[in-house]
Formats: sequence, structure tokens, C-alpha cells
Amino acid sequence: MSILAVGTVAFDSVETSGGEVRNGIGGSATYFSAAASFYGPVALIAVVGQDFPVSSLEFLKDRNVDLSGLEVKDGKTFSWSGKYEENMNNRHTIETNLNVLLDFQPKLKEEHCKLDHLFLANLDPDIQNSVLDQSTGSGIVGSDTMDFWIEGNRESLLLMLKQIDLLIINDSEARQLVEEVNLVRAAKKILNLGPQTVVIKKGEHGASLFTADTYFSVPAYPVVDVIDPTGAGDSFAGGFIGYLSECNQKSVEAMKKAMIHGSIMASFNVEDFSTRRLELLTREEISKRHDKFLAMITP
Amino acid sequence: MSILAVGTVAFDSVETSGGEVRNGIGGSATYFSAAASFYGPVALIAVVGQDFPVSSLEFLKDRNVDLSGLEVKDGKTFSWSGKYEENMNNRHTIETNLNVLLDFQPKLKEEHCKLDHLFLANLDPDIQNSVLDQSTGSGIVGSDTMDFWIEGNRESLLLMLKQIDLLIINDSEARQLVEEVNLVRAAKKILNLGPQTVVIKKGEHGASLFTADTYFSVPAYPVVDVIDPTGAGDSFAGGFIGYLSECNQKSVEAMKKAMIHGSIMASFNVEDFSTRRLELLTREEISKRHDKFLAMITP
Repeated sequence: MSILAVGTVAFDSVETSGGEVRNGIGGSATYFSAAASFYGPVALIAVVGQDFPVSSLEFLKDRNVDLSGLEVKDGKTFSWSGKYEENMNNRHTIETNLNVLLDFQPKLKEEHCKLDHLFLANLDPDIQNSVLDQSTGSGIVGSDTMDFWIEGNRESLLLMLKQIDLLIINDSEARQLVEEVNLVRAAKKILNLGPQTVVIKKGEHGASLFTADTYFSVPAYPVVDVIDPTGAGDSFAGGFIGYLSECNQKSVEAMKKAMIHGSIMASFNVEDFSTRRLELLTREEISKRHDKFLAMITP
Repeated sequence: MSILAVGTVAFDSVETSGGEVRNGIGGSATYFSAAASFYGPVALIAVVGQDFPVSSLEFLKDRNVDLSGLEVKDGKTFSWSGKYEENMNNRHTIETNLNVLLDFQPKLKEEHCKLDHLFLANLDPDIQNSVLDQSTGSGIVGSDTMDFWIEGNRESLLLMLKQIDLLIINDSEARQLVEEVNLVRAAKKILNLGPQTVVIKKGEHGASLFTADTYFSVPAYPVVDVIDPTGAGDSFAGGFIGYLSECNQKSVEAMKKAMIHGSIMASFNVEDFSTRRLELLTREEISKRHDKFLAMITP
């Protein structure tokens, strides 16, 4: 099955205990598509400014990601800069420049509206809602969001949540969204806002899936040298939705298996800055890590 | 197989967002034995003062815990008081009074020396070492420790670590012990100190088992209403060693299954203050939660 991914393509400047990168290629749609592309056809919807080297996304094209929905506009590309604490869990945003994102109003081509699964990667909920209105696919509708929108555009975010099947969200943002410290209770409250399934990502502590009557949890794959956690959540979502697309199922049982693929893609992503690791990644490496992952969770 | 458990029996005064208890029954040996008693015979070695209501341990006797190694000494019982933050992960010690623990020098009876497994629950490493010297069992030798001893008696602690098979330790204390933020690297460093197996407990994030060539991880059972985390780590150890005793194995494969039993016992323990929940617990409840646990980790 095919996937339509809407999100950001960005310049990221990141500082971690593993080093520093200025204006690396990043963005939620970039990481998501890079991860999902291993599993099936993906079309990317995003906007960049004229300062963006579109050739840097050539590796996505090589994996059959449809980039025809990438708008290039007058102006500067969305950029984010941040610094991670030594524990790699806490991050501090230094600067967010929305730039061309400010008046991004994607108009989907007919062939994109019909794609099966829709993933609304982290982006202004107003844009997420506008894409939701245009999409007619019959697969899963999933989304992600972040503190910036929970604080800044809560009303549109709540409207979006009413219309989706699946929210994939960070633990701290899940807590913030429903103002609840206990994650199990937070998940239940989020389920009441609309989605039938909530996946809470917990960084080095893995991820948990909640439905009205299911709880499923996986640890993180143990990466000894975490270089840069940026994009781990988007890569998780790409592996998750990618697997659902590949296996052509959307049952809770399929989603449990998808949790493993999400974790694996996130674990590769953190091994280098920007999209470097995902660019070099092979299907064989994914398969090997999948075997290891199963061994580490099977009693 | 039988278990010898050495540790503390204590008065705990605890404040959490779930309420407050003054001078409740606690202590590492108490929680450990209460959990392990569901799986097989346990003998408890500890000391209390004359202020301790020994009748409060009657529930352990009813489950065939041998209390003949509980010394009652002139003086006051060891007591601890602390307060948990709302997230239930961070705790602050208000007061620790070692009291009768200060000159506790257990002399094991011959029948206790021969018991199969030995668990050195959290206690002064000097006392742990003295018990190690006396024990002649052929089963697993495991131990736990905490920040208090890592800071206060490091040399004896390192001597103890050289002689044990298994260390069961908190994540923050694992990091502190080897001064390493990354848990995977911390575990490897601990393995270099002696034990062939390290289990790192991560509170609401579950637990991970490390050997030279194995990594295995389980999430925590999702408890919606955590009332008091005190003793969760000791209960985990009790379920873990208890299971090994019951199944009469000490392979890594058995330890993977033991991780689930540890997690389950910890999850029950946090549902009420002091040993209240473990006192009321039944084998049937354990069995039911075990089934649920398997479902939540099996993809």
C-alpha cells in the first residue's frame, strides 16, 4: 500500500555530546520518508525555500519516494537549531524559523489524494487539517505533533485529533497535551480526544501502544553510541507506517509488529547526524537488527 | 530450590502523591522475602530493635518464610523516611537512622549456610561480604545496593561485586557506580567488576538484563494508580530469584523469564503503601498478571 507523508523539510543545526552539525538536512517529512521508503511507495508533501539544495534529497528519489509534491517557494527554508543534554533525552531549542512554512498551503494533486495511508508528520495543525480535508485514502490516518503546536495552536490540534486513527507522540508531549503525569492515564485521555490508537515514544525507554483494550510495549534497541537523536521520532513513525503499508494490514496485531520496525528505524537514525545513517542503510541491516530485536524481547 | 535472603527489616515513613504512612513495615529483606515466598522456601536474615512488632511479619511465616534468622537486639530498629516527587521516579531521603544495623554481624546457622540461592539485599557491603564468606550454597549469588553504600563504602562494595553472579541495581545507581550516563555502557562496565549478569531496574520504564553476549529488556507493567514505589526494587528481586528457585534453573533463558516475574511482583508492590499489597496478594493474581504481561510484550 502507498503512503502520503506531509511534514517539514528543513535545515537543522544540532549540537550533541557526539559533535555538531550546521544546516544539516532534516525535517519531519524527510526522516519519515527516508525510513518508510524501505517498506513501500511514499509521496512527500512539503515546502522549501530557494536556498534548499534539492539534490540532497536525491537518495529519497533513488528509493522511489515521489518528490513531485515538494514545493520550492521564494524565501528561506524552515530551520531549527537545538542542543541536547549529555543524556540525549532532554533537548533545548535555540531557534525556530518558520520562514516558507508560514504561508504553506498544500494543494494535493489528485494522484496524491488517493494514496492509501496518510501520515501528518509534525507540522502546523492548520496545514495538517487542510491535508486531511483533501485526502481520500482508505488506509490509516496517523499524525505526530510537538510542544510548539500544543502551546501555539491547540484548537486546530484538537480538531485534527478528532479526525485521525493514530497519534504517534513523545512522552513529554503526551503529558503536556492532556496535563497528566502518569503515561497510562495520559494515553487514555488522548484516546478520548479522537484517535483509536496512541503510540507514545519514550526515547531510550522504548515505546508503548495503547488502544481502548490493548497495551503493548517495546524497549528501545540499545545503541551504545548515540550521536544525534534528531528525527528519531519521525523515523519511528516511518518504520511503523511503512510496515503497515508493506504488510497491507491495519489490525492491532499488525501494529504490534510495526512497533518493532519503528524502534529499529529510530535506532539506526540516532547513530549519526542528519539523515546520514538512513542514507547508507540497507534492507539487510534492517533485517539483521529485526532478528536481534526479537531475541531481546522474547523470553 | 531454597533461598537465603539477607537485608534489612525496617520502619519506613513515606510521603507520596498517593498519601502518607508513618513507621510502616519495610526493609529490603522484608519486601524481597514477601515476593519470593510465592515461589519457594525462603529464610530471612536481618536484625530489628526491641521496638519492632515482630507479629507484623506473621504473614511471612504463613507463607513458610523461615524467620529464625531474625535477630532482635537492644536498641532501635533501622528506619528510613523519604518523599517521592509527583512523577514517582525521583525520591528524596529525609532521614536514615541505621540504629541496630550499626553493629549487625550475622552469624549464620549451619542450615542457613547450605541454602541454594543467596540474595544479598540492599545493606552495608561489609555485612554482605561477611554473609558471602559463610554461605556455601550452589545456586545463584545475587545482590543489590544503593547510592548510600556506593558513596559510603565503595571499597567493600567492589569486593562484594567480585564474588557475586548477579547484580540487580537501579538505573541511577548503575550510572553512579561506574560514572557512565549511557546505560548500555554502564552495564558493560559493571560486568567488568565481577558479576556475569547485571539487571538494571528502570522504574516505570521496566528493566534490562545484560550478560557479556545477551541483552534482554522488559517494560514495566502499566500501573495506573501508583501509591508507593518503596520496595519495588526488592520485590522485583524477590520475584526474579524466586522464579529461578521455582524452576530450578540458572541459565540466561531462565533469567529472561525471571525478568517477567520480577516486574510483576514490583507492579503489585507499588499499588499500596508498605507491604500491604504483597500481604493480600494471591498466586492466582500473579498468574493472571503473568498472562497479561506476556500479551503486552508478544508481537
